[in-house]
Amino acid sequence: MAAKGEKTRESILNASYALFAKKGFKQVTMKDVCEATGMSRGGLYSHFSSTSLLFEALLEKMTDEDAYDFKDQIKKGTSASEILEKALRSLEEEMKHPEDSLSMAMYEYAETVNSDTMERLNRISKKKWKELILYGIGTGEFLDVDVDEIVNMILYSYQGVRMWSRIIPVKPKTINSIVGNIKRQLTGEEK
Amino acid sequence: MAAKGEKTRESILNASYALFAKKGFKQVTMKDVCEATGMSRGGLYSHFSSTSLLFEALLEKMTDEDAYDFKDQIKKGTSASEILEKALRSLEEEMKHPEDSLSMAMYEYAETVNSDTMERLNRISKKKWKELILYGIGTGEFLDVDVDEIVNMILYSYQGVRMWSRIIPVKPKTINSIVGNIKRQLTGEEK
Repeated sequence: MAAKGEKTRESILNASYALFAKKGFKQVTMKDVCEATGMSRGGLYSHFSSTSLLFEALLEKMTDEDAYDFKDQIKKGTSASEILEKALRSLEEEMKHPEDSLSMAMYEYAETVNSDTMERLNRISKKKWKELILYGIGTGEFLDVDVDEIVNMILYSYQGVRMWSRIIPVKPKTINSIVGNIKRQLTGEEK
Repeated sequence: MAAKGEKTRESILNASYALFAKKGFKQVTMKDVCEATGMSRGGLYSHFSSTSLLFEALLEKMTDEDAYDFKDQIKKGTSASEILEKALRSLEEEMKHPEDSLSMAMYEYAETVNSDTMERLNRISKKKWKELILYGIGTGEFLDVDVDEIVNMILYSYQGVRMWSRIIPVKPKTINSIVGNIKRQLTGEEK
């Protein structure tokens, strides 16, 4: 039964992701989620009692994406360059899909509920990237960069694209150049 | 009379800037602008006939800011480093004032009206920065960087902060590190 509950939870999260990406946070109701998942009100509420909790669970899940689980990959002995390559490819893919961006929903959520979750997840992201970069400097794969500085450039240029690609078309070439710049700054190599 | 008209126009733009920054685009009405400026409906409409035109005029004005008028400064023979320093200080100041960010208003405007103005202004910004960087490479003040790449990093990291600083507090240290990274990439020097 645990497995089934987990599966249901996953399908709720997937359906609501699409809703939040499309409509932002404020305009999504529990009724919308019921409709999108085909669940009864009771069924849905046994998993999540509000759109806020649903949205927070979604943000948590995104921060836990495998591609950004650097600690685990480091533990397995994967090279820093390989971890970086995989992570940059993920960022690139995400930036190329503005329709999946939760930027607006996050803004509305922070404005109407609070920004504690976002602050916490932002700290976690920073920490993860910092660990990867320090690891790469340690193995000699990365240049001796200013770690905080590069982490900020990675996270904010990414967020800039996530936001602006909802306003104007951002070309794949632009996205490639951002990922290329990060890679060059870390490794000295061309993308 | 022309001077007085220009002054009135300025004061309308200033008052509406504050409204758009605070409330976004959709929620600002011509009535709000009348109230904020103390103008009559007729007086306001003789300058702008809609909040869309008002918002567009505001975006145009921002793109024309003196600090980003690189062409004029280049013509005057100002050094690339000096122009860059001034421009980065302006970006830094803007990033440190999330309450003045029009990010959300721009998003709502693009969503409800259209994104042509934003695309055009984005192209103008890119072109300006490109000219400055090419000028600096030409004078030997800047490194031989990939120009498009750096311009994208400047504009998108800036936009990322403008957006996120409305969601979570972005520390001055973070903002300094972004400006520092751009400067280092262009000149090889520490900030």
